[in-house]
Amino acid sequence: MKIKETLDFLLEADRLEAFPRMGYLMRGVPRPESVAAHVHGTIWVAMMLADAIPGANVERTMRLALLHDLGEVRLTDIPYRGGLHFPPGVKDAAELSVADALLSKLGAAGQRYLDLFREYQAGESLEARIVLAADKLQMILKVVRYEQAGQRGLDDFWNTPENFRDHGLPLVADLFAELVARRES
Amino acid sequence: MKIKETLDFLLEADRLEAFPRMGYLMRGVPRPESVAAHVHGTIWVAMMLADAIPGANVERTMRLALLHDLGEVRLTDIPYRGGLHFPPGVKDAAELSVADALLSKLGAAGQRYLDLFREYQAGESLEARIVLAADKLQMILKVVRYEQAGQRGLDDFWNTPENFRDHGLPLVADLFAELVARRES
Amino acid sequence: MKIKETLDFLLEADRLEAFPRMGYLMRGVPRPESVAAHVHGTIWVAMMLADAIPGANVERTMRLALLHDLGEVRLTDIPYRGGLHFPPGVKDAAELSVADALLSKLGAAGQRYLDLFREYQAGESLEARIVLAADKLQMILKVVRYEQAGQRGLDDFWNTPENFRDHGLPLVADLFAELVARRES
Amino acid sequence: MKIKETLDFLLEADRLEAFPRMGYLMRGVPRPESVAAHVHGTIWVAMMLADAIPGANVERTMRLALLHDLGEVRLTDIPYRGGLHFPPGVKDAAELSVADALLSKLGAAGQRYLDLFREYQAGESLEARIVLAADKLQMILKVVRYEQAGQRGLDDFWNTPENFRDHGLPLVADLFAELVARRES
Amino acid sequence: MKIKETLDFLLEADRLEAFPRMGYLMRGVPRPESVAAHVHGTIWVAMMLADAIPGANVERTMRLALLHDLGEVRLTDIPYRGGLHFPPGVKDAAELSVADALLSKLGAAGQRYLDLFREYQAGESLEARIVLAADKLQMILKVVRYEQAGQRGLDDFWNTPENFRDHGLPLVADLFAELVARRES
Amino acid sequence: MKIKETLDFLLEADRLEAFPRMGYLMRGVPRPESVAAHVHGTIWVAMMLADAIPGANVERTMRLALLHDLGEVRLTDIPYRGGLHFPPGVKDAAELSVADALLSKLGAAGQRYLDLFREYQAGESLEARIVLAADKLQMILKVVRYEQAGQRGLDDFWNTPENFRDHGLPLVADLFAELVARRES
Repeated sequence: MKIKETLDFLLEADRLEAFPRMGYLMRGVPRPESVAAHVHGTIWVAMMLADAIPGANVERTMRLALLHDLGEVRLTDIPYRGGLHFPPGVKDAAELSVADALLSKLGAAGQRYLDLFREYQAGESLEARIVLAADKLQMILKVVRYEQAGQRGLDDFWNTPENFRDHGLPLVADLFAELVARRES
Repeated sequence: MKIKETLDFLLEADRLEAFPRMGYLMRGVPRPESVAAHVHGTIWVAMMLADAIPGANVERTMRLALLHDLGEVRLTDIPYRGGLHFPPGVKDAAELSVADALLSKLGAAGQRYLDLFREYQAGESLEARIVLAADKLQMILKVVRYEQAGQRGLDDFWNTPENFRDHGLPLVADLFAELVARRES
Repeated sequence: MKIKETLDFLLEADRLEAFPRMGYLMRGVPRPESVAAHVHGTIWVAMMLADAIPGANVERTMRLALLHDLGEVRLTDIPYRGGLHFPPGVKDAAELSVADALLSKLGAAGQRYLDLFREYQAGESLEARIVLAADKLQMILKVVRYEQAGQRGLDDFWNTPENFRDHGLPLVADLFAELVARRES
Repeated sequence: MKIKETLDFLLEADRLEAFPRMGYLMRGVPRPESVAAHVHGTIWVAMMLADAIPGANVERTMRLALLHDLGEVRLTDIPYRGGLHFPPGVKDAAELSVADALLSKLGAAGQRYLDLFREYQAGESLEARIVLAADKLQMILKVVRYEQAGQRGLDDFWNTPENFRDHGLPLVADLFAELVARRES
Repeated sequence: MKIKETLDFLLEADRLEAFPRMGYLMRGVPRPESVAAHVHGTIWVAMMLADAIPGANVERTMRLALLHDLGEVRLTDIPYRGGLHFPPGVKDAAELSVADALLSKLGAAGQRYLDLFREYQAGESLEARIVLAADKLQMILKVVRYEQAGQRGLDDFWNTPENFRDHGLPLVADLFAELVARRES
Repeated sequence: MKIKETLDFLLEADRLEAFPRMGYLMRGVPRPESVAAHVHGTIWVAMMLADAIPGANVERTMRLALLHDLGEVRLTDIPYRGGLHFPPGVKDAAELSVADALLSKLGAAGQRYLDLFREYQAGESLEARIVLAADKLQMILKVVRYEQAGQRGLDDFWNTPENFRDHGLPLVADLFAELVARRES
């Protein structure tokens, strides 16, 4: 391990603890979770999905979940609708550029993490699809928590079909269905 | 005035009150100012500069200052170094795209505001240069306030030459010089 | 421009960024907007009104809006009902006293700003009436935002006739009517 | 006890939990204590002083400490320097007016509390002087805590002689002396 | 009074201002009151109860209320349901251990406070029962305030019979009944 | 996967996002990280350690890191010195009791997670020792970040030898040594 570079990396990555999830903030959630907390929740969902889905590599799934928002260390959490004002692919490329800048100093380990980041962005492997689903499941679970606490104005999250993609995973579809059913009752 | 569209615009623009200035947040300022508060301070600086600079149109200067971060209503406050991970011009184009989407519904008034937004982005008119300078002067003043309150780790702001451009305005150069001199003493 | 005095003024006026709007705070809004953000929103409303009302001087309207809560730099945002426990006129006089103390050090520019502050307090010119209306319109718009986000207990704002005065401006009456109609539907 | 009126009183007095101490806020303390927490600390100091000062009535001292900022339920915490912009006595009269409005609905108990509030404002009884001193001791203790945590810009608190009056109580003088000595070392 | 030890005690006890009430936090209250503010409210309720209940010693009641959460200076506010995961009596013993550690340095005064803390924990004297009731009455009043402000998900507080014990005091039963009746209407 | 139970578990575990790290709070950090963010950082450190330490099972290391503070879902983050007021082993037993209550509803997956939680508490396996070290490394890294931002009063963290145990891992010793060396320079 490159000691100094690793510590510098960890200190910079710690910014995710300070960055709020902007989609909640713009809709009036007074103290939204941080990106770091979102990643924490995503790893939980991803691990539990991977444990339940035959053939999934749990270790790689957890790595992908941990890495999936690394680009936000420098870009912060640009909201979904804000991203639509960029040309297609530009935001993904910027996130990869950040991941590359951060990880390229970490030697072989960094190279490996960067490959995993690319795998997540490609979104094709079983593990990447699990993390893409976990990212949204965590988000909807958080919306449920906010709504239980009296927060309103979060209908957009429920009305955006993109948030409920199952990525070809029936278990994910079941989890979303249960969440939707609970809200409607 | 288009009543309904104007109210919808104002309600969406109110998001700037919720969005923190991310450059402070990433450096550990626990409760950084909002973008709305930054714009408020920028208007103060811009008005006072325009009142003191012969030939400046104060009304247009104040309009430009009010409008200058309108793109952040949807993009949020992407930090300076984050922006470097986008291709040149892409962030400006995205901000213009947001301003266009927001203002195009407001009829003739909206068209006029959009022209002013373009003038600000071009950065060539006297009034646009005053606002570009006011944007940074407000930022450095805020940094002074944070440092007076014990905040540390804000040296980047002082070490970035881009923050101290005078845009050809000697008064701006004098103000920056006084701020630097105070810090060094 | 008096360089040092202007910077001192701006540093002191920056307090408005830290002061919460107390009427919201006392009714349980967990993270109410700052006075600075309120002024930002008021300038938006005031400019748009002035652009739509024939005969209004937009520059002076924007100046009045920027200045209108300057007294709070030292008094903070004393709530409306709190103010009723002072003898009539005392709070206005205190705000003027603060504005005078802050602005009198700024030379000719400061004198001009102080005259504008007096014009706002007199509330008689077209521009002053626009800003008085904008002050309340911004407040009701913020209440709408809070209520959309699930906040309750804000009925007082809607039930206080003083908040809905049109100051002889039909456009203002129309805007309030639309806001009330939206809430009732 | 008047059940309904008492509950209404307690619900309104609960606002003190939401109101920040503005003197800290204006100097850049990011999350200053509430007025309620200040009163809590003041009661601690006042009780400990009264227990140590021969002849002091501890019960009345504690009552006075609990009541001493009741006017802020409606006025909020107007900073010391802001108060100087009011004519002499006006702020005290407003606080008494608030206390009267709140307490007059509570029957005999309320009348008694109002008499105690007046005793505090008069500042002459031993118990009132203990609470006046406790109010400032708590404040300086809080400043010590903030400075230990890295907060800066709080010199005003130390440089204001009014904050260090002993109200004729040698024990208070000793406590302030110890606090000053600690800071200087 | 032991000057140095008393100041050290007050500085450590000031932590209660920073500690949030965790039961609210876990249910999504974004900015819950501090333990210090809770104690402040509890003293108000306790004093008013003691003033209305024949035979109650008001001074001792107020002292018990002030002391009742002193153990949280080091333990923080462990939620009720969390406490159920400890063996019976362990949490009380830990709170007493903290109170002992804090107060034993204060000489005779500290010994007296420690005896009062024990009296509160025993919960048998009239004054201790008043404070036990005031502790819960303050909590339910706070829940009412949160619900008035739109907070949801606080039903647990209303559904826990333990929160509504009258401790043999008819006045307390009346106050709870009025609070329940208001919520149901 | 037990769909409903899993969602209930995730919703309850989400509380970690709301719970602040109390050791920072008690020392005056105004907006300390959440337990969830701490776990996020711990997973990063743990993964990077496991990747660099021959023989370490990365998957199990990441699982242990994710699980290590699960007891705080109900107990909240009782500070280290607070824990010393409980009899030895009581706090660990309470954390295990919480983990058991949460996980026992999740079927076979839950049983497996509970076994991992026990492995972490035992602290003997290579992976458990990596996570014990990562828990403290993340903490010291956070302290570095706070101190870079001007926070003071955090010397306790550096002066507690327990925070710097290497658990028999030379790489951990090197990382701590580098952190200490940076602070001293």
